[in-house]
Amino acid sequence: MDSRIYFDNNATTQVDERVSEIMHPFERECYGNPNSLHSFGMEVRSHLATALDRLYAGISADDEDTVLVNGCATEGNNNILKSAWITQILNGRKKQIITSRVEHHSVSHTAAFLASMGVEVVEIPVDKNGVADAGALRELIDPDKTALVSVVWANSETGLMNPIRELCGIARENGVLFHTDAVQAVGKIPVSVRDIPVDYLTFTAHKFHGPKGVGGLYIRRGAPFVPLLHGGDQMGGLRSGTVNVSGAVGMGLAMELAVASLPYENTAVRKLRDSFEDTILTLEGTFAVGSRDLRTPNTSFISFKGIEGEAMLWDLNRAGLAASTGSACASESLEANPLFEAMNLNKDLSHTGIRFSLSRMTTESEVNRAAEIVKNAVLRLRAISTADQI
Amino acid sequence: MDSRIYFDNNATTQVDERVSEIMHPFERECYGNPNSLHSFGMEVRSHLATALDRLYAGISADDEDTVLVNGCATEGNNNILKSAWITQILNGRKKQIITSRVEHHSVSHTAAFLASMGVEVVEIPVDKNGVADAGALRELIDPDKTALVSVVWANSETGLMNPIRELCGIARENGVLFHTDAVQAVGKIPVSVRDIPVDYLTFTAHKFHGPKGVGGLYIRRGAPFVPLLHGGDQMGGLRSGTVNVSGAVGMGLAMELAVASLPYENTAVRKLRDSFEDTILTLEGTFAVGSRDLRTPNTSFISFKGIEGEAMLWDLNRAGLAASTGSACASESLEANPLFEAMNLNKDLSHTGIRFSLSRMTTESEVNRAAEIVKNAVLRLRAISTADQI
Repeated sequence: MDSRIYFDNNATTQVDERVSEIMHPFERECYGNPNSLHSFGMEVRSHLATALDRLYAGISADDEDTVLVNGCATEGNNNILKSAWITQILNGRKKQIITSRVEHHSVSHTAAFLASMGVEVVEIPVDKNGVADAGALRELIDPDKTALVSVVWANSETGLMNPIRELCGIARENGVLFHTDAVQAVGKIPVSVRDIPVDYLTFTAHKFHGPKGVGGLYIRRGAPFVPLLHGGDQMGGLRSGTVNVSGAVGMGLAMELAVASLPYENTAVRKLRDSFEDTILTLEGTFAVGSRDLRTPNTSFISFKGIEGEAMLWDLNRAGLAASTGSACASESLEANPLFEAMNLNKDLSHTGIRFSLSRMTTESEVNRAAEIVKNAVLRLRAISTADQI
Repeated sequence: MDSRIYFDNNATTQVDERVSEIMHPFERECYGNPNSLHSFGMEVRSHLATALDRLYAGISADDEDTVLVNGCATEGNNNILKSAWITQILNGRKKQIITSRVEHHSVSHTAAFLASMGVEVVEIPVDKNGVADAGALRELIDPDKTALVSVVWANSETGLMNPIRELCGIARENGVLFHTDAVQAVGKIPVSVRDIPVDYLTFTAHKFHGPKGVGGLYIRRGAPFVPLLHGGDQMGGLRSGTVNVSGAVGMGLAMELAVASLPYENTAVRKLRDSFEDTILTLEGTFAVGSRDLRTPNTSFISFKGIEGEAMLWDLNRAGLAASTGSACASESLEANPLFEAMNLNKDLSHTGIRFSLSRMTTESEVNRAAEIVKNAVLRLRAISTADQI
């Protein structure tokens, strides 16, 4: 039994036991290639079909839309941005891609690459609430030159949710394609492509208690698309490469479980998060980034005045609490938080935030212990800091 | 206990029990994101480091070279061809990519896509032995315009091995980058990038008793490279996306086991394959494609005069023997075998071949039973065919 506490579920999650169990038979029993014509291949296909049904249902995709199983959301995000570049810029008359200031690196670094190839990349700023400014998109979008608008649904650092319905609506009014990176939204809030008619949407299993190494890409019927991975007939030729069968099957079940858990996520998990946050905020010199009703229910991003984020992280880790200073994908580089910069928060604060991200696995006892650990760390680090000043 | 016989190991393989076991703890115990700074992240890293060490050792890569863990060989092949397009054609003065007539779709279809984007794609023909013609490469290559030569090490249909040492030598003499898709070579024959100094090499775990959904890409130190997946810092920023930890760890061990099994593969498995083939070839109107010494030790591609490949496949399948008419990636399309076309074999034969691909899991008793099943199928189908003609 692990006595440590894992409050870093926006980085990755523990695989659900049921997901783990459903995956294993595809390693040594049903190990056939689903593209093979013999029984080893055929016996796998019904499981893949069930998995795909679960993915379609999970995001309310229509049968005539496409959901591709791929390797990760980074692949999906690269695919959509590069597909827009190829179909509408290299092979078309458009020249611009609009993203936002609060994207994950898999969008912002892909956009930077495309900028280096001559694409005009424009970023929507965030408003004072820390979410992408829909008014700014209205100003920036140009039906004659904008190939794609790509805005993340929920920011991984803060959990702040962008106004996707409104942003998508503006893109559609202008006849421009709209993509959202829904990695931090799926499993935390209802995500329906029927309700909000995005053209493309990306997600990844390991953020909702599924396995690492498998993701999903939604493509609305008729939306232009060029594969990132050309090759065999897999996924109708739209995403070649032998299908990661165990991963796909695991992601399917993980999606079903995540969607079924949404009510719990938005009541019990939210309550745990709020209670944790309330306790932390009783400490002096703390504040939470972003109003609660604009955040996914599992995430708190808290700044501790006078305490350097990395020092705090190490202190928490030593006491058995895993948290983060932001996106795990940028952890090693220790960059300033891009959202903090975007929100024009005090420059000193851009290195002080700690993200606590809970999940449906989180217990009340963990929340209480975690709050205690945070309190002690704050007192200790402030004492050291005061001592330094003497 | 499965009473069926699996002779389709070039399509995919059963995961080795030891590989399966080493992977599972990364789902529910060591589930951290390796990019995270806390203990959940850190405890994963040493396992990833061991996995990478095993991959480097498996292909004799130098510490200063790069081996990326990615999603599959299709991703690696796409990456290398598209990277050459971007770095040397779009952003450079080259304009041509040379491949061969016997590539896997992940190379040939990617090349076709690049041709649609204006790249000049040239294919090396095969000689009478069915392998890529080195003399033809010497004629075709042009240091001023050739950006990349990409030739598959061993063909998946026939196991025929191309003269990679010679082809790579010709590319190097001309200062042109060389890539090989070694998917069907790794685990079957020695593959050393020290011995044969290719610039890029792709492989995938599920062809050597590792899991599906994870592959590897070798890049020689200094070789130009643009990521296919831009984003976070994973793999030094060269292949972004949360690392598939269990997959990487599994692939590492699978590589080590496969390399350790090479002597067995080249004696015992070869002997089983030869014995199987010898028995089949005693039947009238049969021939094996490609001379044995030019083939990987596990593969037989056999033509049965007057018997349609698909009919045969179904007959074998019903009797419990899984084989293939060619690449699983093209199975559903029932295309004519590209190698047969390339070898200019009788057009009628291009639909008659059956591939039998063994592995280190194959037993002598399976070989004997399989030969019996094939014999019976041939007799039965020929009887039907004769009956039809009456």
